[in-house]
Amino acid sequence: MIRHTALFKWTDEATSEQKQKIAAELSALPAIVPSVRSLLLGHDAGLATGNFDFAVTVDFDDEAGFFAYRDDPAHREIITRDILPITAQRVAVQFKF
Amino acid sequence: MIRHTALFKWTDEATSEQKQKIAAELSALPAIVPSVRSLLLGHDAGLATGNFDFAVTVDFDDEAGFFAYRDDPAHREIITRDILPITAQRVAVQFKF
Repeated sequence: MIRHTALFKWTDEATSEQKQKIAAELSALPAIVPSVRSLLLGHDAGLATGNFDFAVTVDFDDEAGFFAYRDDPAHREIITRDILPITAQRVAVQFKF
Repeated sequence: MIRHTALFKWTDEATSEQKQKIAAELSALPAIVPSVRSLLLGHDAGLATGNFDFAVTVDFDDEAGFFAYRDDPAHREIITRDILPITAQRVAVQFKF
């Protein structure tokens, strides 16, 4: 299987409403993108200094499943409309397990 | 529950042996740290440009479980002896789910 992990640092100007909207929209993707086996996400819990602000972890059966998620139109719309405008930094890793 | 996600970018000088040793050592932690409910890790699969090199995701029942993992002596030894010397960048998020 493939686990996709993406961590985001938001801009200082990002509002709580914008952050909550992104979490809600991404949480709806498993019902839209059939290749998603499991999706967990959340805002940083404040347990460590220097952390990023938000994380998304998504599991797929295989690489094709990840690419289907990456390229899904509903997902791309969330990225373009809501995520990119408030993203200061993003780091990601996909790994097999 | 709490999911800990940590993504690493290794130094250019890091060897394959060093990277493999870290993966093997961290994979042994669930047998050492009782608060770990699930640990998945892996080297970046090369599916996207600009990614970091390595990811660790660990699930706990609660914040106390995360702190027990963070502070476990066996874990600290791996961090100090093997991870820090080859870490160029590290980003992390802990989130509730």
